[in-house]
Amino acid sequence: MRITWPVPVPELPADVHPALAATARAASAAYGAARLAHPRLELREEVADGADGTPTMRVDALVEGAIAEAAARHHANLLSEEAGFVDNGSDVTLVIDPVDGSANAALGVPLSCFAGVVVVDGTPTEALTVWFDTGRSWWARAGEPTPYRTTGRTALDGASVCLMRPKRGTEDAWHRIANRADRIRVLCTTCLETALVAEGSVDAFIDPGSDTHRIMDLAAALVTVPAAGGVLVDLHGRPFTFDHDLTRRWSGVAAATPQLAEALIEAALA
Amino acid sequence: MRITWPVPVPELPADVHPALAATARAASAAYGAARLAHPRLELREEVADGADGTPTMRVDALVEGAIAEAAARHHANLLSEEAGFVDNGSDVTLVIDPVDGSANAALGVPLSCFAGVVVVDGTPTEALTVWFDTGRSWWARAGEPTPYRTTGRTALDGASVCLMRPKRGTEDAWHRIANRADRIRVLCTTCLETALVAEGSVDAFIDPGSDTHRIMDLAAALVTVPAAGGVLVDLHGRPFTFDHDLTRRWSGVAAATPQLAEALIEAALA
Repeated sequence: MRITWPVPVPELPADVHPALAATARAASAAYGAARLAHPRLELREEVADGADGTPTMRVDALVEGAIAEAAARHHANLLSEEAGFVDNGSDVTLVIDPVDGSANAALGVPLSCFAGVVVVDGTPTEALTVWFDTGRSWWARAGEPTPYRTTGRTALDGASVCLMRPKRGTEDAWHRIANRADRIRVLCTTCLETALVAEGSVDAFIDPGSDTHRIMDLAAALVTVPAAGGVLVDLHGRPFTFDHDLTRRWSGVAAATPQLAEALIEAALA
Repeated sequence: MRITWPVPVPELPADVHPALAATARAASAAYGAARLAHPRLELREEVADGADGTPTMRVDALVEGAIAEAAARHHANLLSEEAGFVDNGSDVTLVIDPVDGSANAALGVPLSCFAGVVVVDGTPTEALTVWFDTGRSWWARAGEPTPYRTTGRTALDGASVCLMRPKRGTEDAWHRIANRADRIRVLCTTCLETALVAEGSVDAFIDPGSDTHRIMDLAAALVTVPAAGGVLVDLHGRPFTFDHDLTRRWSGVAAATPQLAEALIEAALA
């Protein structure tokens, strides 16, 4: 069965970097076309092995292909999950997760998004996240405050927390957090969940130790969450790097405040 | 902080019962107005005790108020969480969950919905679910097939399952299911999660024993899921009844097939 809901054209602020805006629009259009052309089973079929070492679903490949074309048209380099680093001879590199929440995107669960960052000389300058099914976007420039703000919450007890789904070896940490939070959610889309932290709809998001995140899963949040008053850190304090080694992994923790991030990490590592 | 995203006018099929359509439109308009008028903290403030024995948040009260007006205008009786049974002298009773996923609705997590059923002489005849943040709707008439279909999956191992959040006393059952499923999600909105089962985006939804559901949490799924080829049952086999006793509770299990429901129940009760 096909997913029959439309994928709208994203609503983007006027100031988004043209190459980043073009890739976001290309991603939404390609995902919409993929849903029309392929039933769910075909969307999730594994068609290749990605540069990040994980299998590439057809939906990922189709959307990334459209993004790569848009990046080349705008003479920007691209660092992406499946293709790895694509050198288009530019000072600007786009670090992009073409389809965050690939499993959701392939199944039809309407929780998946595009997330991209403009990186100049190894430093992220702006970030854009687009929720495919609604066209809603969150944009931020590094170091400039955003109109949306985190909740400002500092205490874990009673917090609303999004969690990475429990994986073997992290169940105990997962439960220590779930038991102290007031409400937990598992949406299976890190980039959308960290956008919800940035806009103050949930207090935090955490991978309690599964080391699932690649840099493109966290790159947008690295700009967006601090710009909205929060923090993005790794569970073990490892620095985030924008090099081309896509085998690196992190356990991302996005929180409304540094105190809440600290409380989450203490609970996870207790 | 206010939730700044708009709540669209719902997209409804032409054949929806006029009273049900009117209450759905009233609910979306009232929720949109509530988000404009009140910051998140005020939306979730407890303003009364509902007829179902749980506290009523301001967002619930505002939306239910608009629904009650629409039901009265259309001379339909109403059975709703906060108000209980409202007799408008009709043969038709609307059984409505004004805001399913109230906590999401109050926080700004864009996963909450209206869910309503037309009941004539104790028998549900049609059901409508409207996802507030997108205006998407799922409608079904009892006994008539829908254009959308469940996945048809029969096996739990490898399934995509939405779960009620883990609660004290149900953690073991929760984990037995999570460990056998391929992917789990916790969206905290039963009515939207069962709509995803009906349209084939996830294989199943289960409350693994917390007995959280009132009849209005399950009423729409009771029509929609079977019409799409699936089943909705109670974990302990208790029959669903549309009487006016809102202290009754169930643990709802919606699944793509009877076999998958059986496998989920076996895993939960093991």
